[in-house]
Amino acid sequence: MDLGLSPEAETVRDRVRAMVRKDIMPLDDEFEQEVGRDGDRFSFTERQASIRESLKDKARDAGLWNLWRSKALGGHGLTTVEYAYMAEEMGWSRLAPEIFNCSAPDTGNMDVLHRFGSESQKARWLDPLMAGTIRSAYLMTEPDVASSDATNISMSCVRDGDAYVLNGEKWWASGAGDPRCAIYIVMVLTDPDGERHRRHSQILVPADTPGVEILRPMNVFGHDDAPHGHMHLRFTDVRVPAENLLQAEGDGFRIAQGRLGPGRIHHCMRAIGQAERALEMMCRRALSRTAFGRPLSELGANGDIIAECRMQIEQARLLCLKAAWMMDNASAKDAAPWVSQIKVIAPRVATAVLDEAMQMHGGMGISQDTPLASMWITARTLRFADGPDAVHRRQIARTELKPYRHR
Amino acid sequence: MDLGLSPEAETVRDRVRAMVRKDIMPLDDEFEQEVGRDGDRFSFTERQASIRESLKDKARDAGLWNLWRSKALGGHGLTTVEYAYMAEEMGWSRLAPEIFNCSAPDTGNMDVLHRFGSESQKARWLDPLMAGTIRSAYLMTEPDVASSDATNISMSCVRDGDAYVLNGEKWWASGAGDPRCAIYIVMVLTDPDGERHRRHSQILVPADTPGVEILRPMNVFGHDDAPHGHMHLRFTDVRVPAENLLQAEGDGFRIAQGRLGPGRIHHCMRAIGQAERALEMMCRRALSRTAFGRPLSELGANGDIIAECRMQIEQARLLCLKAAWMMDNASAKDAAPWVSQIKVIAPRVATAVLDEAMQMHGGMGISQDTPLASMWITARTLRFADGPDAVHRRQIARTELKPYRHR
Amino acid sequence: MDLGLSPEAETVRDRVRAMVRKDIMPLDDEFEQEVGRDGDRFSFTERQASIRESLKDKARDAGLWNLWRSKALGGHGLTTVEYAYMAEEMGWSRLAPEIFNCSAPDTGNMDVLHRFGSESQKARWLDPLMAGTIRSAYLMTEPDVASSDATNISMSCVRDGDAYVLNGEKWWASGAGDPRCAIYIVMVLTDPDGERHRRHSQILVPADTPGVEILRPMNVFGHDDAPHGHMHLRFTDVRVPAENLLQAEGDGFRIAQGRLGPGRIHHCMRAIGQAERALEMMCRRALSRTAFGRPLSELGANGDIIAECRMQIEQARLLCLKAAWMMDNASAKDAAPWVSQIKVIAPRVATAVLDEAMQMHGGMGISQDTPLASMWITARTLRFADGPDAVHRRQIARTELKPYRHR
Amino acid sequence: MDLGLSPEAETVRDRVRAMVRKDIMPLDDEFEQEVGRDGDRFSFTERQASIRESLKDKARDAGLWNLWRSKALGGHGLTTVEYAYMAEEMGWSRLAPEIFNCSAPDTGNMDVLHRFGSESQKARWLDPLMAGTIRSAYLMTEPDVASSDATNISMSCVRDGDAYVLNGEKWWASGAGDPRCAIYIVMVLTDPDGERHRRHSQILVPADTPGVEILRPMNVFGHDDAPHGHMHLRFTDVRVPAENLLQAEGDGFRIAQGRLGPGRIHHCMRAIGQAERALEMMCRRALSRTAFGRPLSELGANGDIIAECRMQIEQARLLCLKAAWMMDNASAKDAAPWVSQIKVIAPRVATAVLDEAMQMHGGMGISQDTPLASMWITARTLRFADGPDAVHRRQIARTELKPYRHR
Repeated sequence: MDLGLSPEAETVRDRVRAMVRKDIMPLDDEFEQEVGRDGDRFSFTERQASIRESLKDKARDAGLWNLWRSKALGGHGLTTVEYAYMAEEMGWSRLAPEIFNCSAPDTGNMDVLHRFGSESQKARWLDPLMAGTIRSAYLMTEPDVASSDATNISMSCVRDGDAYVLNGEKWWASGAGDPRCAIYIVMVLTDPDGERHRRHSQILVPADTPGVEILRPMNVFGHDDAPHGHMHLRFTDVRVPAENLLQAEGDGFRIAQGRLGPGRIHHCMRAIGQAERALEMMCRRALSRTAFGRPLSELGANGDIIAECRMQIEQARLLCLKAAWMMDNASAKDAAPWVSQIKVIAPRVATAVLDEAMQMHGGMGISQDTPLASMWITARTLRFADGPDAVHRRQIARTELKPYRHR
Repeated sequence: MDLGLSPEAETVRDRVRAMVRKDIMPLDDEFEQEVGRDGDRFSFTERQASIRESLKDKARDAGLWNLWRSKALGGHGLTTVEYAYMAEEMGWSRLAPEIFNCSAPDTGNMDVLHRFGSESQKARWLDPLMAGTIRSAYLMTEPDVASSDATNISMSCVRDGDAYVLNGEKWWASGAGDPRCAIYIVMVLTDPDGERHRRHSQILVPADTPGVEILRPMNVFGHDDAPHGHMHLRFTDVRVPAENLLQAEGDGFRIAQGRLGPGRIHHCMRAIGQAERALEMMCRRALSRTAFGRPLSELGANGDIIAECRMQIEQARLLCLKAAWMMDNASAKDAAPWVSQIKVIAPRVATAVLDEAMQMHGGMGISQDTPLASMWITARTLRFADGPDAVHRRQIARTELKPYRHR
Repeated sequence: MDLGLSPEAETVRDRVRAMVRKDIMPLDDEFEQEVGRDGDRFSFTERQASIRESLKDKARDAGLWNLWRSKALGGHGLTTVEYAYMAEEMGWSRLAPEIFNCSAPDTGNMDVLHRFGSESQKARWLDPLMAGTIRSAYLMTEPDVASSDATNISMSCVRDGDAYVLNGEKWWASGAGDPRCAIYIVMVLTDPDGERHRRHSQILVPADTPGVEILRPMNVFGHDDAPHGHMHLRFTDVRVPAENLLQAEGDGFRIAQGRLGPGRIHHCMRAIGQAERALEMMCRRALSRTAFGRPLSELGANGDIIAECRMQIEQARLLCLKAAWMMDNASAKDAAPWVSQIKVIAPRVATAVLDEAMQMHGGMGISQDTPLASMWITARTLRFADGPDAVHRRQIARTELKPYRHR
Repeated sequence: MDLGLSPEAETVRDRVRAMVRKDIMPLDDEFEQEVGRDGDRFSFTERQASIRESLKDKARDAGLWNLWRSKALGGHGLTTVEYAYMAEEMGWSRLAPEIFNCSAPDTGNMDVLHRFGSESQKARWLDPLMAGTIRSAYLMTEPDVASSDATNISMSCVRDGDAYVLNGEKWWASGAGDPRCAIYIVMVLTDPDGERHRRHSQILVPADTPGVEILRPMNVFGHDDAPHGHMHLRFTDVRVPAENLLQAEGDGFRIAQGRLGPGRIHHCMRAIGQAERALEMMCRRALSRTAFGRPLSELGANGDIIAECRMQIEQARLLCLKAAWMMDNASAKDAAPWVSQIKVIAPRVATAVLDEAMQMHGGMGISQDTPLASMWITARTLRFADGPDAVHRRQIARTELKPYRHR
């Protein structure tokens, strides 16, 4: 059970790390502050585009492009375990994942197209996604049903000649605010009376299809995360060619299940990266700030807090790596409960470490003078994204109890 | 040890509750959404002013005005225990405290003026504050020092003829963004070489004094809390008449200590109110939302979560009431460790309950569709305001260990 | 809502405290070490009897006898709130409760006889119990069913002429090991087909009735708690006169519900007393022990641990007092969820504080050189006695959700 | 970073597992109940000796003997990582570790003799220890000083001709109660005025040396752990030949540091084994016990509790394996903070899982009808053994802060 890096992968990791810390992180704040400067929050300023594209060029030139496409996903190069280390490095910067063409939800969407797309679907959508010229969104969650129980998904999709007609609402469509977002993968209900896990399908809907309406961005803790955005959309008689269907009718569940595993690991490892960054900030603060005549590091429980953070991070990272290893070495089904475990643990640890880091910084820790509050919001949001904790715990418990049933 | 309400106070509580829930809460969202509509976030729109002043008139007419001025603070009417119940009710709404002229930091500032102000100081500043025609700020924390150890406060204040000249920076001056904020109470260093607890003084600085410069609003979790604001200010040769000093030189500490107790209790009881509101929302959600064929209330740990929230809230409320009772019945010194206790516990409980409430709501819980995320930020911020948890725990431990020393 | 002591009750509390600390605690260890010295663990040595009876005489003479019989239980003297303070004091010593004739399960049993016993039942059993000449046990829990759901109780009780015949097993009958234990109150199934809450009855069974067999003591963490004992008993055709029934057939539930409230409060307040004792020991240790050149009190998180313990204890005590106040001032039904709350909280806080106290003492903390480990076991056991935490949380959640149903 | 088993090691693990579960565990209870049957708790009955020796023969014959002697400890065969898996299996049974000659403190003592013993020391003590014919104890902790700061160790050891003379007390000498315990390795103070880390030495003291006096067994939660025992000893003019010194005077610290790492990993992995066993019991109970009409597994938070236990165990195990891997692949110094981490985490997780398992079993969970309470005590005791949590956290924090000092 090798949870480490090959020597080659270690070199890649070091290069990713160097680029994130030296080239990308110094531009994170400026990129963020440009949002809305032109009067439209859901567009990019010229300066933003310039920062982003020149960094992407640099990553592409350095061969640090599409690293997410691991062996387990049919690519060559890194294992999922190895890519997990890269994701951790990218987690230090808000901007970094896209620079390496490794950002959510695109990696998951590209993976779906790779595995389930037809040749023409791939030519039209996958190629520009792999090239980083367009972006995508994944439309699953709906406002009126408990979407964590995916059998509730209710967006109507009715065959009409050689087309499908979609009606309904979706929300929390992350990335759908980006002006470059060209294609949606949409989970729809094609056979309401079918067998429970064969009722749904997935279909490709170009973002500019008539009838698609962006109602509003969903806020997280009061922020619209523009221009990325988590959009609330309404589909009114949205008509797409029948060949836009991914695989066959009824395959929606099967495709969804395959999609989520790797993406969750990436999310979680980025969260570990954020936790590491927070711990470093906490340590620097503890040594440099003085109160009651001593550095914070020697006051009260601060040493213990630092130790607890270190232990939590190490455990969470190892668990993520184990889940990644299962992804590489076991069936998707056997890997699933491991993915559920990290989906609960990694955001929990990241929020906890970030919370302590904020507290160690005093009021500054929640202000614009550190990135901690923003990072905390991202980590907290992850406790909902791709399934709330309760649903994952439920899944873990079922797996655990299974061997003891009927004995 | 009566921790309840007299029959009269119960009537007042019921009237406050009714006004908060029926008159004020329905306008909270609109009031909030008006912020910045005129292009300036740190002003009020006409609509805001109209909402606010008509509600204030209503409260004034109903005799629900300045309720904070309890017997312990030299007023008549409610005890601190009784006022704590009122503060809890006001905590349900962001707007409510000001409507009853009971908002921070004004209550604390009015109390300081009542107890330590000269007659002319009272006439000029206390009377309009009590009337609700101006507002105030309390300038203590500084960016460059660990202000939780108040002996670090370093803003220079030098006597020059019949004036004092102030130089330095302050931040987290809550309320200093409000265009009506007319007066600052400022903690300054008057005698750097004096005895440790006699080095500081408090002085009144009108907001429009030349040399006062608002540098920026401090953000909390990315929000500027406009138009209230937590401002970062710079004082450059700010000159105020010597009679603006509160009490004598060196009295800064003594005044600060007297100021913080009641204000902390009010903050904490408002936090309890927020927790109660969150628990009600959680219960309603648990009963109305269905997943996996059952209401959330019957799924997994949800019942236990609700029970734990109830138990946490009850304990925290009782502890606040006990601290209030100490404020009414013991010396400020004996009450202090009780106030420290609630200052740690109440925001902890409120953040915990709000966090669970958000989680029970799924993605909606952190979005603009509920007030939970905003309430969480307020409660989390309280873990810094008026001293971070660590400083209060330190104080509690010292009190606890004291009787066993030298035995 | 007076949660304090009247001046008279304060005097009583001071006298109880003095007697516990000066007269009883110094004999606790010796009393304990006598167990089994005569070769029989479930008897008392002469020395034990002498210690116990002379202390009881002292308490009786001082008028500190049967203090548990509060106004709410039909007595005169103390309120439940006031008695709660006495129970806390008694909690400091293992031996103390019996010295004041205030020990479990006798107080609960006496209360049942007071309220539900016939005159002849009272004369025969209540009088000697009130006099402290015999002891009693309450037989409810059964080994084969989840007794926390009391409708599962299955001990058979069949009318046969003017007698009842009992068959079945009971366990965790605390106090049934005591050689002076003369009478059992037994929860039995009289009408298996009756309405769910009318199937059970309570009946008096003298301990020496033929067919009663003590199978073994149940151990807690390896200890038999001799000579008190938590016994496992088997009833084989145990025949008692029909007039031994308490109230009428089917009243078992009603009687059980009335019994448990006050007893749980007493248990919980004794647990608070243990927590206070542990905190005092922790503080003394923290000041007297040195490591790495400083007293433990100044090392690492120790101050924070002490502060957290103090805050937990205060909150738990206030919650117990509130529950006691409900017992005095509200219906049993309205008081019930409050009792459930403290039943979860008090043992949790006591185990947590005791655990920290053990840790602060190093290895000594779990050894025979301090009473901490033994106290911890008692507190941990309380998380099962009178209903496990989960059942109480369930009850609290139901109460909480109730107002929002059908709206 | 291979944290798994080689195919050969996997076979060994499977054989250890089979032997533990099929041959040893069924005899655990009987072995335990024999203690003291002959009237002496610190001896073995004939039946005990027979059980033990026949199982040891079986292990020896199967080549499952001294498996602890990993490559990192100069042996051949397993890596520390691989042995960790074996230790986990042995943790399921109280008796198992000795059966494989892998029990504490003997493995650590054998390791010390291997690495630091002279040829004649090895011949006399190591050979019979490796053969399992004698046992040993490690005497470090002292009653009067905070031994977690090992510079406090104060047992006097004075050179007198060709002998050393020892005076002082030691306690918590685990295994010193065993009648077969023939040799003590003793940490002593040889140069009180020397450089802080060169003051101490380690010396071999045969258990039957005149002047050695066993004062009493230390109890843990009221148990003497006979016949193993954690003994309190007094040395009065105990005279041993000078050649009994391990290495040179002043080497005490160096030897102690090398000793503790692997032993702590073994302890921790055995604790993980106990946690796994508890989780299995919890699951079986959750499925088989019914209350309120449903199996416990479907009631309240029980599923979530099971999921949380699973996640905690996986993380703790991975952390132990990582620490073992560091032991195999890095310097003792670099491995040390990893060992400190698991020393905090593994007992914490084991006690938490065992506590939940007890609770899920109702009263039975703390009784003699399950091994849970006894296992809990073992795990809780581990939070003191080889250094209390606080000392390890302190060490972890120092390591964490180090890179940021002086920058």
